[in-house]
Amino acid sequence: MPSPVPDAPSVAYDDVAAAARRLDGVAHRTPVMTSRTVNDHTGAEVVFKCENLQRTGAFKIRGGYNAVSQLSDDEKARGVITYSSGNHAQAIALAGRELGVDATIVMPEDAPQVKLDATRGYGAEIVTYDPDTTTRETLGQDIAEERGLTLVPPYDHPDVVAGQGTVGDELFDQAGPLDRLLVCCGGGGLLSGCALAARHHAPDCTVIGVEPAAGDDATRSFHSGERQTVENPDTIADGARTPYLGDVTFPLVLDYVDDMVTVSDGALVRAMHLLWERMKLVVEPTGALGAAALLDEVVSAEDERVGVVISGGNVDLGRAAALFEAHGLA
Amino acid sequence: MPSPVPDAPSVAYDDVAAAARRLDGVAHRTPVMTSRTVNDHTGAEVVFKCENLQRTGAFKIRGGYNAVSQLSDDEKARGVITYSSGNHAQAIALAGRELGVDATIVMPEDAPQVKLDATRGYGAEIVTYDPDTTTRETLGQDIAEERGLTLVPPYDHPDVVAGQGTVGDELFDQAGPLDRLLVCCGGGGLLSGCALAARHHAPDCTVIGVEPAAGDDATRSFHSGERQTVENPDTIADGARTPYLGDVTFPLVLDYVDDMVTVSDGALVRAMHLLWERMKLVVEPTGALGAAALLDEVVSAEDERVGVVISGGNVDLGRAAALFEAHGLA
Repeated sequence: MPSPVPDAPSVAYDDVAAAARRLDGVAHRTPVMTSRTVNDHTGAEVVFKCENLQRTGAFKIRGGYNAVSQLSDDEKARGVITYSSGNHAQAIALAGRELGVDATIVMPEDAPQVKLDATRGYGAEIVTYDPDTTTRETLGQDIAEERGLTLVPPYDHPDVVAGQGTVGDELFDQAGPLDRLLVCCGGGGLLSGCALAARHHAPDCTVIGVEPAAGDDATRSFHSGERQTVENPDTIADGARTPYLGDVTFPLVLDYVDDMVTVSDGALVRAMHLLWERMKLVVEPTGALGAAALLDEVVSAEDERVGVVISGGNVDLGRAAALFEAHGLA
Repeated sequence: MPSPVPDAPSVAYDDVAAAARRLDGVAHRTPVMTSRTVNDHTGAEVVFKCENLQRTGAFKIRGGYNAVSQLSDDEKARGVITYSSGNHAQAIALAGRELGVDATIVMPEDAPQVKLDATRGYGAEIVTYDPDTTTRETLGQDIAEERGLTLVPPYDHPDVVAGQGTVGDELFDQAGPLDRLLVCCGGGGLLSGCALAARHHAPDCTVIGVEPAAGDDATRSFHSGERQTVENPDTIADGARTPYLGDVTFPLVLDYVDDMVTVSDGALVRAMHLLWERMKLVVEPTGALGAAALLDEVVSAEDERVGVVISGGNVDLGRAAALFEAHGLA
């Protein structure tokens, strides 16, 4: 059980702006999209920020690249390491390639072949482990010490948060003023970064974090003011299965986010289906959290201008088709 | 078997520019996207124009709206009719709603419910027919005469061609100079309109039309100079099953297009899968024709800047998943 670290480094909007300059020409300036169907359904004017169309298929390259770029020359020469079976793995692999820094990624040996291949395709070294005999943290730390590598964590780092905040920065630049902003929440990196951007561009914008109902640690933490945990929650939103908010992200969420809500896996599948079928966007379950809160009317936004971040699109196509079928969606 | 009509009305770039002004604020200015994976694979710098992200999920709203907008007040008051079970049906339904013109769509009674619902959702009147007892042309003409409706054809009309040409117009504006442009070809409306735009913006750009191998009427027509036909070709590219180029489009294709090529259905499925999995775009088989020609190396474009039009994304998600599985793609 973690306890808040009072002297954890914080992040300010200036850090987001600096990250945006570093990411210029590296990350895509992803498009924003609108849908009359969604507007008619919600009574709101909704602008989707499409980070599923980002390089590597998710926003993670922003924070990963920003963090690796800020290492010292000596740290860069020795290389970086991370453990992830998700979007952060590909982000660090690509950031390493772009910056000429060797990247080592610790992944479970039963990770999907497509993810192993994609990560290896960016030139990273993959070290697999047997989840029955060791943990990725133990193995990762052992390798980091042995080789002198710098660990780049997936969310709990100021440079990662600042990088993810550029999603919100771009959205306000592209969409103009917003009354409300919906952002998915796993470890809180994207959420706290976007909240920082919202406070800068639109101080009155209501920022809402969205979690899967089974993985509601951040929602409980937000409402109680005490950091809460979940253990391996049963949800299709695999990017939001993180056990607790970070030392860096928890204080930022408390300071800059206005509310936290949760949505069911059923609502996630329905939102995904609408995004795929009507908006022609391949979106992963975690990426549909914000849209689901709006479409399932967990959040009401009538007559408002609402921004919704679509965080990623890395989902096995066959698995998505099976989810749609299991929920009676053609 | 049709014969070219020597005095068929032609279309010039000025008509495309005028259509662009009419479509401002009506059609989405769809994003262009790039993919390092595609660039690495082809050795080219490829820019995709994403008309799957257009309203109604396909480019057809451009030509449909432009054509309906140019009717006389009297014609508008009486209403329009078309026959289509595809993207043109939804385009005319939406164009009618936007312009306050009653739209009647003739569709087979066994059309997919989702298409009937979507078309009806735009406020159009749907008249279904039994394909065993009548043809859509006969029924459509009967209703048109009886009610005094104006027929808006799917491609063979100068205002439709001019509207579709705005796809190319926007692409050159967004992407800058291109060495090569790949456009799918059914009846030739999109292809000839985009070729007009290419000639205006980049006279040296090589414009290539792409058809499914089974529906190669336009390719044979282009190479022979005589209009050729196909009858109900067996291809998954349902938007390119048109029997022959039109009176308006055939001369334009001969004048402005540089080459025509075909791709197999297998190449289409592989291209679709890459667009879905790597670029997170839901693309229908017809919409992947241009990408397939490039990825399957039917067209070589090494060291070139290449534009590829993705024409639409209206495909049943379950059917797409089945196609991927049948071709051994996860």
